[in-house]
Amino acid sequence: MLANTPSPPYYAVIFSSVRTDDEAGYAATAQRMLDLAAVQPGFLGAESARNEIGITVSYWKDLDSIRQWKAHADHQIAQELGIKKWYSAYQVRICRVERAYTF
Amino acid sequence: MLANTPSPPYYAVIFSSVRTDDEAGYAATAQRMLDLAAVQPGFLGAESARNEIGITVSYWKDLDSIRQWKAHADHQIAQELGIKKWYSAYQVRICRVERAYTF
Repeated sequence: MLANTPSPPYYAVIFSSVRTDDEAGYAATAQRMLDLAAVQPGFLGAESARNEIGITVSYWKDLDSIRQWKAHADHQIAQELGIKKWYSAYQVRICRVERAYTF
Repeated sequence: MLANTPSPPYYAVIFSSVRTDDEAGYAATAQRMLDLAAVQPGFLGAESARNEIGITVSYWKDLDSIRQWKAHADHQIAQELGIKKWYSAYQVRICRVERAYTF
């Protein structure tokens, strides 16, 4: 589902990743993190797709909301497990959305 | 494959979409557009994934490079076909990448 975000400016976190073969706990944690992100202050929406690589983009009101979500205790644990078990590589890009249009 | 982008700042175009059932010409055109984008001035890389929705993020040196690619004649034709045939909905977000980190 596409995210229904407000008019810019707002912020986006582009998380692109390559998975390992380790499936244990991954899907449940990924879903829990999406559910948890969705109730954080400043969360505006998220979009996610995966085949050869995965791309999850979450949208936020401001940089402070992103900082707080990055530092959230449960999210910190998930980030550590991600590095240890689930991802062979990832990139995080913090962006300011300046313009948007929809069809 | 993850994109190997330089240090920020640079720009990202987040293209998220929902496909129709019309497959005719889609895969070939999508690939041709990626190949053509890759030789445009200011192109820095791209990442793409699709399952329920599709997300393609292309990275660019500056807003002017994005403008030129949007206006490219072959890309214009593909955009029109996209609206007519291949996409039931899409969103384009133009963003300034301010910070990035990698694992």
